[in-house]
Amino acid sequence: MPGAHRAAGLHRPHPSSPEEPPAQEDLLLAAAYVSDAQYNRNVPFETSPQAVRLYHFYNHWTMRAATYFFIWGDLALALFEEPALFPLPFLATSIAEVLCLTAFSGRLVHFAKVTPQMVFWKDTKNICIVVTIVIRRAFRSIRNTLPDILYVFLLFIFSMLIFSLMALKLFGDRGLKTVEGSPYFTNILDIAFELYVLVTTANSPDVMMPAYEFNWWYSLYFITYIIINTYIFMSVFLAVVYNNYRKHLKNEIRTLAYLKRHKMIEAFNILKVKVGTEFVVKEAQWRQLAKIVAPDISSSHLELLLRISDEGQKGYVDKMNFLRLADLLNIQVVTINIKRHPLEAWMPRVYQSSPSLLVQKVVRHRIFVWVYDVIILINAIFIALDEKNPLISYAEWLFLSLYIIEILLKLYTYEPRAYFGRKQFWNWFDTLIIIAALVATVANTTIQSARKYNSQQILDIVLILRILRLLRIIVSIQRFRVIVTTLINIGPTMLTFGGLVLVVYYVFAIIGMEVFHGKVHFFDPSSTSPDALECGNPALKDSAFARGRYCRNNFNDLAASLILLTELTVVNQWHVLADGFALVTHQASKLYFIGFHVVVVILIVNIFIAFILEAFFVAYSLEKSEVETAIEKKIQELGVGVQEEEVQDGKLIDNVDAKDSGFSGDDGDNKRKALKGLYFRIASKKYKTVDALLQQMFESEIAPEDEGPSLEEILNFSPSDIHPKNPSFENSA
Amino acid sequence: MPGAHRAAGLHRPHPSSPEEPPAQEDLLLAAAYVSDAQYNRNVPFETSPQAVRLYHFYNHWTMRAATYFFIWGDLALALFEEPALFPLPFLATSIAEVLCLTAFSGRLVHFAKVTPQMVFWKDTKNICIVVTIVIRRAFRSIRNTLPDILYVFLLFIFSMLIFSLMALKLFGDRGLKTVEGSPYFTNILDIAFELYVLVTTANSPDVMMPAYEFNWWYSLYFITYIIINTYIFMSVFLAVVYNNYRKHLKNEIRTLAYLKRHKMIEAFNILKVKVGTEFVVKEAQWRQLAKIVAPDISSSHLELLLRISDEGQKGYVDKMNFLRLADLLNIQVVTINIKRHPLEAWMPRVYQSSPSLLVQKVVRHRIFVWVYDVIILINAIFIALDEKNPLISYAEWLFLSLYIIEILLKLYTYEPRAYFGRKQFWNWFDTLIIIAALVATVANTTIQSARKYNSQQILDIVLILRILRLLRIIVSIQRFRVIVTTLINIGPTMLTFGGLVLVVYYVFAIIGMEVFHGKVHFFDPSSTSPDALECGNPALKDSAFARGRYCRNNFNDLAASLILLTELTVVNQWHVLADGFALVTHQASKLYFIGFHVVVVILIVNIFIAFILEAFFVAYSLEKSEVETAIEKKIQELGVGVQEEEVQDGKLIDNVDAKDSGFSGDDGDNKRKALKGLYFRIASKKYKTVDALLQQMFESEIAPEDEGPSLEEILNFSPSDIHPKNPSFENSA
Repeated sequence: MPGAHRAAGLHRPHPSSPEEPPAQEDLLLAAAYVSDAQYNRNVPFETSPQAVRLYHFYNHWTMRAATYFFIWGDLALALFEEPALFPLPFLATSIAEVLCLTAFSGRLVHFAKVTPQMVFWKDTKNICIVVTIVIRRAFRSIRNTLPDILYVFLLFIFSMLIFSLMALKLFGDRGLKTVEGSPYFTNILDIAFELYVLVTTANSPDVMMPAYEFNWWYSLYFITYIIINTYIFMSVFLAVVYNNYRKHLKNEIRTLAYLKRHKMIEAFNILKVKVGTEFVVKEAQWRQLAKIVAPDISSSHLELLLRISDEGQKGYVDKMNFLRLADLLNIQVVTINIKRHPLEAWMPRVYQSSPSLLVQKVVRHRIFVWVYDVIILINAIFIALDEKNPLISYAEWLFLSLYIIEILLKLYTYEPRAYFGRKQFWNWFDTLIIIAALVATVANTTIQSARKYNSQQILDIVLILRILRLLRIIVSIQRFRVIVTTLINIGPTMLTFGGLVLVVYYVFAIIGMEVFHGKVHFFDPSSTSPDALECGNPALKDSAFARGRYCRNNFNDLAASLILLTELTVVNQWHVLADGFALVTHQASKLYFIGFHVVVVILIVNIFIAFILEAFFVAYSLEKSEVETAIEKKIQELGVGVQEEEVQDGKLIDNVDAKDSGFSGDDGDNKRKALKGLYFRIASKKYKTVDALLQQMFESEIAPEDEGPSLEEILNFSPSDIHPKNPSFENSA
Repeated sequence: MPGAHRAAGLHRPHPSSPEEPPAQEDLLLAAAYVSDAQYNRNVPFETSPQAVRLYHFYNHWTMRAATYFFIWGDLALALFEEPALFPLPFLATSIAEVLCLTAFSGRLVHFAKVTPQMVFWKDTKNICIVVTIVIRRAFRSIRNTLPDILYVFLLFIFSMLIFSLMALKLFGDRGLKTVEGSPYFTNILDIAFELYVLVTTANSPDVMMPAYEFNWWYSLYFITYIIINTYIFMSVFLAVVYNNYRKHLKNEIRTLAYLKRHKMIEAFNILKVKVGTEFVVKEAQWRQLAKIVAPDISSSHLELLLRISDEGQKGYVDKMNFLRLADLLNIQVVTINIKRHPLEAWMPRVYQSSPSLLVQKVVRHRIFVWVYDVIILINAIFIALDEKNPLISYAEWLFLSLYIIEILLKLYTYEPRAYFGRKQFWNWFDTLIIIAALVATVANTTIQSARKYNSQQILDIVLILRILRLLRIIVSIQRFRVIVTTLINIGPTMLTFGGLVLVVYYVFAIIGMEVFHGKVHFFDPSSTSPDALECGNPALKDSAFARGRYCRNNFNDLAASLILLTELTVVNQWHVLADGFALVTHQASKLYFIGFHVVVVILIVNIFIAFILEAFFVAYSLEKSEVETAIEKKIQELGVGVQEEEVQDGKLIDNVDAKDSGFSGDDGDNKRKALKGLYFRIASKKYKTVDALLQQMFESEIAPEDEGPSLEEILNFSPSDIHPKNPSFENSA
């Protein structure tokens, strides 16, 4: 393992005598590596005991949460500073700003204490080298990605200009007029802008109408333009962006997978002792390590992992099994401690009586679900009807009671802790919606009966909750559940993506506020001021902007700016907005809007689409063949596995002879019996993110004994290395 | 080969004595199989000598061209029949119709004579079985494809309805007004339509403005709606359509590949004779067969193919090599017969003189190309300027002369037949544009100087040609050429696709004309009739349709209907069109427009995007590693290969000691020498369609000795069988 050794040179060597048990510091260091491997963290840190402790603290969730809190707080300050949506005194925002900056500095100092960079930065030569390397890497990355997009973009612009020239020659001298009566296609710059807008389809078919009315043959010009520039070029953009997205995704996953392997080898080297001819990690150390990395792990779960890692129960874990530790910890094992229903323990007679058993049977029956689906549908019709009618108002209470009865019945039938299991998303959803609706309805009625005050906000919330309840129907239809689950899995990655998008929006919003602030004013709809018709700016008189009553679409505060940018992202009517702001400033400000379109719609929205396409393809290919992991096999071998479906259908609770029993995993032969009553279930693959699934696939293709390339090589991976050596039928279509 | 034998049962057994040379009929039958394999035709035909002859005639290009002519003629009749764009007497269109129908019947009878179905149809039991099988297959195909799309669509509709309910409850009682002053969001059906339109983004941001003006928090409702329904659901539709497209494409290609193999085995079985222990096809038969399949093949090309097929020059072709015949014939081999420049032969002294050589050197130099690129750019600026100026008018003649001089210089330097080679797309493009521009400019000047008449059409053509000339700049930039070439390759498949789209458009146009014909009238822009403002229909008074001057967007003739449908495909303002036609008929007619949107925009446009994505991915994966084919290797082995680049750069003509010589391929040892002067080049892979590339990939994965599944199994392939057995990292991301 030349790479591992070379990279390990940075760190403290492992204890000189292989027989000596590792000290607490070594355990902490190894735990830091394993934890980094588990969560794919890649911060270089110093290996002195003090730094490692600081590093553990640095990664603590409270510290991370605080950092995010201060970042969002700092960004949100723009809502309260001039131009403000909610004006606050300057002193208050200043104090908040200072607070945030202090928190950032604290985090930075903490980081500096942790990383070995403080020593490093002192050496100016090293800084130069690092800067050069960073610039070179960034440059290479841009060089690899941009040309594809740039050349397509240039060709697209070229095609647009050719069509602009044609339009000028074909229509320029005809003396045609637009609907507004202004000259049609007489100026090459105006034509180019109109045709760019046509690519986004925002001015179709209006831009064509004057020429079409003159001679219907001219419509062919516009149809050709749209086919070439809107359909073909925009699809090519998507193809190029998607292709690059795939390459980058693969590269990132490959880098992460090798870095993970690398860290696990480091951890192994710290803890290894020699037993016979091979280096291994003793069971006691392994336990300690796992406890440090995952303090909340249950002892039965830990026992299960040890069984998997130390298959022969030899008292130590060999290298290959040790390297899997991060993966094992990452697999969410749901420990189902099958217990009797609390009511059964409390009053067995009543619970086991025949009426009680009948109730339980009814609740478990399919028809019970169907009946409630019908109730929800009737509820939907009632919601759509006028609620002024008192009968319907009473019906609302009836429905609410029915839902509450349903939840109570289910809690009576199923074991409550199983029903509210960690991964029982839909049960949680159901219950929370009902409780929230109950609280909100009660609150609203109280306020209404007080008659003094009818809270708009609470009323809106009640309405929305009442309607969200209809989402429960999705739960009943298997096919819907699959689609929704895939979408929910995309969630975490989408949030990261949303963060990136928000930064871009934020930058554009700040620029927009600098340039367009105060140029357009919104007057209250009830205002009778003559300025209201031209948004307070005479330049907008008779413009499409003012006629469309777009005055509220302005850059006067952050919220308005972000909403305006969202409208630009949706594209429709963006040219009206661009024209409006060009009228109150200068024609050149259209460049701001075009720039936003190129960056957000052509690049970011396409990345978003590529991301959803990829997520669904991965989901589709996994539906067909599931990759079985070692842990699942082991759970099945041990006979402590439970199929998710069984839990959902309540079969488990029926079929298993429930018995409280601890986990006494020391006698190897009597596994089945010993483990009885305690069941494990792998959290379904459906609940994993695309990245995790892809990484898992890639890792399953690295041989267990493969230690990967050296650290430098890993860090120098480039997306352009990723391409099938022999494109095969399978992976190209 | 159980499958092959079973299927062969339908056909005539091959000659009983393997030593007897096959008769002419056998050759024709084998040729029919090979030809079908070459062109992927899958018509079952009878094997009687007469039927085979008829079948050859049935497949002749004239017959196929005539059929297409009559199909297009029949479809185009709608332009001339009432409601007509160009009215023709009823008699004329009727005669044309009868003519077309006669041609179709003739084609059908011809088909019936060719296929064995005539015997088959007599048996009613068989008909029932066939109908059942067809229905079952169609049903299975729909069952496999539709659910994915249908369930996503249902979920999407469900989400839309939930949001509609919310909108009704949130905004219904607020007493808000739209810009037009009508009540805002008070009727659930109107809300559902508005929200469907919002998914297509056509009414954004107008639909949001009243609520946004009331309270800015309400904009969050619309933003949430757009993120979920426009961005996520529409991307999921694309993902589902793309996924199904890939599966069907793969299935089709697999079926075609196996059917091809199957037909080649049939052909081999007909012609095989026993030599020693193995069955082979004699060289003479092989030659005769190739001549029948490809009558235009040059004898040198045939000789090359024989060398490849009969590598050891044993006088016969074995089975494995015989099976490759269709592929070999499909590879477009460009025979370059390197000759001296005609001028060199005619007046060697002058052509080889030092001024002449200097001219040739200049023309071959890169700077020559750059100079002409600069000239084109200057030309572009002149075109953009006002052409009323006589100086600029003269400049046009100057540019035209410069371009003609360029072409003449190139023809002087390069061998004319090489310059106008079959695959020299850009040379052809260049020359044709220049000649057309010359002809059109001369025609225009003649007409202008006659002063009586200034033809609008010719003027338009001149303008367009003058501007198309600018496309030549693309040729100079390598990156642009790659993108354009990929797009050109998509061409053939896109035409097929365009045919399908046209049929859908045609059906919708016919329905539209039935329902909306004459409801909306277009008045000439110069008309002063008061009806012109409401498109001749009082119901449109003050509607957005009439205000937008959309009167020409009507269903009064086929051309107008198709243009209107194109506008609906582009989506923008489609709700204005839908509202307009709902006003003049009934609100229910909006269903026609929604139906068109679902079928064309959600399904067909997504298939189109999937198709372009796939084409670019295949193109990208091939750019990296080229699959070398046997024929290329052989050409290189024989030393008669020519790199395309060499031809383009004119190096070939410089470096090769050109000499006229025939192809005398019988002395095996002296190949290099014998082949000298005659060079072959594989038409670049860049010029192949996506389907062909995919099929080639798949075929390279079938082992040469694999005879594939049986005919029935092949015909029963289903796209749902296609999925990677072990999804790997490579093919899932």
